[in-house]
Amino acid sequence: MSVVVTNPPRAERALVDALAAFGVATIHEAQGRRGLLGSHITPIQSGIRIAGNAVTATVAPGDNTTIGVAIEQCSEGDVLVVVPTAPCDMGYFGDLLATSLQARRVRGLVIEAGVRDVADLNHMGFPVWSRCVSAEGTGKGTVGDVNVPIAIAGRIVEPGDVIVADDDGVVVVPRRNAAQVLAASKAREEKEAGSRARYAAGEIALDVNNMRPLLEKAGTRHVDYADWVKEQQA
Amino acid sequence: MSVVVTNPPRAERALVDALAAFGVATIHEAQGRRGLLGSHITPIQSGIRIAGNAVTATVAPGDNTTIGVAIEQCSEGDVLVVVPTAPCDMGYFGDLLATSLQARRVRGLVIEAGVRDVADLNHMGFPVWSRCVSAEGTGKGTVGDVNVPIAIAGRIVEPGDVIVADDDGVVVVPRRNAAQVLAASKAREEKEAGSRARYAAGEIALDVNNMRPLLEKAGTRHVDYADWVKEQQA
Amino acid sequence: MSVVVTNPPRAERALVDALAAFGVATIHEAQGRRGLLGSHITPIQSGIRIAGNAVTATVAPGDNTTIGVAIEQCSEGDVLVVVPTAPCDMGYFGDLLATSLQARRVRGLVIEAGVRDVADLNHMGFPVWSRCVSAEGTGKGTVGDVNVPIAIAGRIVEPGDVIVADDDGVVVVPRRNAAQVLAASKAREEKEAGSRARYAAGEIALDVNNMRPLLEKAGTRHVDYADWVKEQQA
Amino acid sequence: MSVVVTNPPRAERALVDALAAFGVATIHEAQGRRGLLGSHITPIQSGIRIAGNAVTATVAPGDNTTIGVAIEQCSEGDVLVVVPTAPCDMGYFGDLLATSLQARRVRGLVIEAGVRDVADLNHMGFPVWSRCVSAEGTGKGTVGDVNVPIAIAGRIVEPGDVIVADDDGVVVVPRRNAAQVLAASKAREEKEAGSRARYAAGEIALDVNNMRPLLEKAGTRHVDYADWVKEQQA
Amino acid sequence: MSVVVTNPPRAERALVDALAAFGVATIHEAQGRRGLLGSHITPIQSGIRIAGNAVTATVAPGDNTTIGVAIEQCSEGDVLVVVPTAPCDMGYFGDLLATSLQARRVRGLVIEAGVRDVADLNHMGFPVWSRCVSAEGTGKGTVGDVNVPIAIAGRIVEPGDVIVADDDGVVVVPRRNAAQVLAASKAREEKEAGSRARYAAGEIALDVNNMRPLLEKAGTRHVDYADWVKEQQA
Amino acid sequence: MSVVVTNPPRAERALVDALAAFGVATIHEAQGRRGLLGSHITPIQSGIRIAGNAVTATVAPGDNTTIGVAIEQCSEGDVLVVVPTAPCDMGYFGDLLATSLQARRVRGLVIEAGVRDVADLNHMGFPVWSRCVSAEGTGKGTVGDVNVPIAIAGRIVEPGDVIVADDDGVVVVPRRNAAQVLAASKAREEKEAGSRARYAAGEIALDVNNMRPLLEKAGTRHVDYADWVKEQQA
Repeated sequence: MSVVVTNPPRAERALVDALAAFGVATIHEAQGRRGLLGSHITPIQSGIRIAGNAVTATVAPGDNTTIGVAIEQCSEGDVLVVVPTAPCDMGYFGDLLATSLQARRVRGLVIEAGVRDVADLNHMGFPVWSRCVSAEGTGKGTVGDVNVPIAIAGRIVEPGDVIVADDDGVVVVPRRNAAQVLAASKAREEKEAGSRARYAAGEIALDVNNMRPLLEKAGTRHVDYADWVKEQQA
Repeated sequence: MSVVVTNPPRAERALVDALAAFGVATIHEAQGRRGLLGSHITPIQSGIRIAGNAVTATVAPGDNTTIGVAIEQCSEGDVLVVVPTAPCDMGYFGDLLATSLQARRVRGLVIEAGVRDVADLNHMGFPVWSRCVSAEGTGKGTVGDVNVPIAIAGRIVEPGDVIVADDDGVVVVPRRNAAQVLAASKAREEKEAGSRARYAAGEIALDVNNMRPLLEKAGTRHVDYADWVKEQQA
Repeated sequence: MSVVVTNPPRAERALVDALAAFGVATIHEAQGRRGLLGSHITPIQSGIRIAGNAVTATVAPGDNTTIGVAIEQCSEGDVLVVVPTAPCDMGYFGDLLATSLQARRVRGLVIEAGVRDVADLNHMGFPVWSRCVSAEGTGKGTVGDVNVPIAIAGRIVEPGDVIVADDDGVVVVPRRNAAQVLAASKAREEKEAGSRARYAAGEIALDVNNMRPLLEKAGTRHVDYADWVKEQQA
Repeated sequence: MSVVVTNPPRAERALVDALAAFGVATIHEAQGRRGLLGSHITPIQSGIRIAGNAVTATVAPGDNTTIGVAIEQCSEGDVLVVVPTAPCDMGYFGDLLATSLQARRVRGLVIEAGVRDVADLNHMGFPVWSRCVSAEGTGKGTVGDVNVPIAIAGRIVEPGDVIVADDDGVVVVPRRNAAQVLAASKAREEKEAGSRARYAAGEIALDVNNMRPLLEKAGTRHVDYADWVKEQQA
Repeated sequence: MSVVVTNPPRAERALVDALAAFGVATIHEAQGRRGLLGSHITPIQSGIRIAGNAVTATVAPGDNTTIGVAIEQCSEGDVLVVVPTAPCDMGYFGDLLATSLQARRVRGLVIEAGVRDVADLNHMGFPVWSRCVSAEGTGKGTVGDVNVPIAIAGRIVEPGDVIVADDDGVVVVPRRNAAQVLAASKAREEKEAGSRARYAAGEIALDVNNMRPLLEKAGTRHVDYADWVKEQQA
Repeated sequence: MSVVVTNPPRAERALVDALAAFGVATIHEAQGRRGLLGSHITPIQSGIRIAGNAVTATVAPGDNTTIGVAIEQCSEGDVLVVVPTAPCDMGYFGDLLATSLQARRVRGLVIEAGVRDVADLNHMGFPVWSRCVSAEGTGKGTVGDVNVPIAIAGRIVEPGDVIVADDDGVVVVPRRNAAQVLAASKAREEKEAGSRARYAAGEIALDVNNMRPLLEKAGTRHVDYADWVKEQQA
């Protein structure tokens, strides 16, 4: 009953590459606080950011057969996104599969499971976001699905969606929204650049964000420490 | 009902700076094994140590309003210490707020929640100890308290207490105890320097710490492996 | 009732050093997927690999007495392997004990508990794999066992067994199997070198591992995206 | 940008009720080991089983507004399925909302978050599967989506899908597959009844499942304990 | 340096008993969503609610000496509240100490650690809220503090504060606020009784809570399923 | 390379049955605080206690073949003890295997993994201690070992060792120590009965355990609350 879907539409390469200029936090905000994968998916490297089109794969617990099947569907600019059908922390992926993905110019791996050979992966410069590191290898035998919608780390990822990943985690941008999210990301970054300059110059959030009315509405009191101590002892 | 306490007494700057010379483990020991925050609060950088006076803030789950309010109470040499009123792993703090704190010469952030923009924070050299990294942004609306005593990671922190943080975690030194803890830290380090030299010269803990009587009292037997194997098979 | 077993047989030094050439993942596979410690035991450094003979020790919760006792049994080429008799995340080990182990040319520490002074340990270049980092110090009083078989992170380790540890985690090789596992590791690595070359040249796992019959047997269908979408809507 | 989808097609009531006769484990097997929610979603009661059509809802962290919105879309025989857009353990649901759902003959709640008033929920006999129990109440303000596909506890749930939940957890059956999964569940249970009788009569799995060839193929040796001990000492 | 504070003021017994009529969720709301202990502190029994005045105690990891010291400070109507000075899951408390507390008419125990003899505790009807169950016993030797302010499960508890605990968890009410929180709890429960009647009669939250303007403001669209499907395919 | 060890020596039945009279906490203490499995292994039922001889089995992740193999080695009075070779939370065991074990008068199951059909297991009265409940079924294919020493939940269990399990968890008593641990358990229980009577009569631990010298040695001060408050403000 397993299925491999071929040739899913992908987001336009130029859009994907343009999104790579923005951080995960910015993109997540720009698309209305949607699409962020759970923070238990962390990078094995530091200081890397990638963006690419998702090729999705489901793997059985302890069985990485489908990764092999999925690679045939990967092409330049993709990111492989893998989820086990039951929670599993084994090491599904190592330096051999990374070599194969690099040969196809795949940009990275996102997996809700473990990876291994991390010293090699670091040396090769192959970026990975995973749930853990584990040397426990997987077997072969059960074939899952490739390029069907998957639920990973609390989000639905469809093939061809844009994956952006950096030190802050992983966000998915639905393929059809890529242009709009790119525009919103640019707008947000411009606005933040203005705020940043004001903060650097010594202004504070209460003024930059016009928050003083909020305090007034909340009835927030400012009390000198000495007075406050007396109140507590009353 | 929220309150912002202003001008709390702080530990003397010279004491704070002197405490920065000692590691968290040393200070924790020196004050009688008190004040260590839970080890789930970890640094996002490596190899950094800071010491500063605590400015405390409570934030609502998913709402970072009070951080904005607290910054107005921060001045040079402070460390901002933030705890949500219910467990929350969202990303309360990023590069904009860090810019603001740096502009005020605040020395770092300790937060029992998530932070984001960690690549930027690393680049800026702004030190953070947090529960996790998360790009999930927070909203604005609920105002908490600033500079009241808080419970964070298992410890009570009062405004003006000294916070010391390094690769080993975070410790709080009550303001009034700072001088005494500094003295005890110095004494401990001197004693340890002596021990270190003896260890480096090949002596072992059994002798350096005079532990052999403990073994005798415990009735610890030393048995050669071959004899022990025979015993097991008896 | 505590016992210190002296002079356990160790794996031959040449074998141990030869095993150090192979990664944990390779060795784990080469010995039939046995002996891997749970992935919650992680290195405090990155990019290090060690191999050595196990000296084992059990410690009471919050009490590191037995580490002191165990060091007397350690010699060049050993790895100290420590487990508390009840789960405990306190910092059992720091720079002083590391100094002592380095003076004896011990190669590293594996501990299912916390360690501290990690900045110092990094500076000294003393390798550690642990469950966490914690500045919470331990006391002295209860004497455990040295060089008896222990259960650590899901595996049994006997004194004299070979411990190999790197970025992927920790694996234990029973002393008597060391030569055989070394041979199997070499064989595996040679086979993988061949596969790696094929992957780098663009071949994929489906062909390198002859997996296509598996797909056929599983009845895996390849469906073009457009057709698949129609199916879903039928 | 929030959307409430009305009148999604539901699985036929007779099918839903028929599925309620089978346990979660049976149904999960019967649909090819798919659709099981993560085991961190547990029942607050014991000994209950329900089946119903999913009404889905996404809620903001700490904000249960959308549950109120979703109830208007619930009718007899439904199960409300709720997921926060970021991990959140607060208590989104209590006795008031349960009263409202009971009044509409909704069969239960599945939520990847916390619930409260559990003593009342137990007294009312309103079934709940949740991530935790928490008295921490949520606010109102942000409107999420109702009856769109959601990712919850590792699975995609679409509105109108069948939810079956019992002491073993929660499984989702896609609406279109309900009849086929029902048939497969019946077949599986009949087969298991046969096996159960044989086990009760003293036969063992090696024979009932014809597993002895597997042992032969694996080269499994049967060794008497006394001989095995000798081998180990050799 | 340990201290035992004697005769702390307690909340008036009548207030404490009156608060016992309200659930933890209600009281938590009634005091402005403050004071709830983390949801990892769970009851070992089901269907119990208690209220009492806190006697606080700090214990060393693996050492329950201070519980013995604290009992001398306990009297009728108290609840003993215990926190280790470092995270520890050992079983600090069993049937003997429960016998002692019952003899003094203490109402229950709240502990951020483990307890044991739970079958006996259940049989005796002694209520406990704890972090876990563990048979691992503790030793004696280190004396902590009694009746000083403590940080437990994210909250500060002072001696004499009111502790209310039930199936939903544990909440602390500062002693001076008890009367006011009692009044607010009554008011809240009366208001909820009105809402409950409306929900039972079939009204829904959108109307009971006047939430429709919120949807309008959010621009929430109601779309028929058929139309929504078409939109998605556009 | 898998092995099934047959006819391991078992502890004498009378000893096993006599040990069943004592709780896990008592036995753990009586054998010098050794042998307690980690507290993450919890009973699926409440109020049950069993004792039996261990039959051990290792299973591959996601594969319960070896349970079938192990059952052939089980006989009346045994407890089956199962551990996966890599962490795995899938549901290895359900009502069919329980039927088989009951037919052989096996007393229960201890497994560091998941179980399913818990409603049936409860109805059958078959006792289980496990890491979790999961309906996720396992496959067949890999044969592990039966009746070899295993590491489970932090302890080594050898075939024929005595397993005692109740609401407090699971403890293992080495076969050769059973008589001695039984005697020590009886002695401990008698001593505790004396203490219990004194506690019930109103004496407290400080006197029953003669702890007042400990306080004196620690320099513990008793301070009246009013004086203590003044000290804090000094």
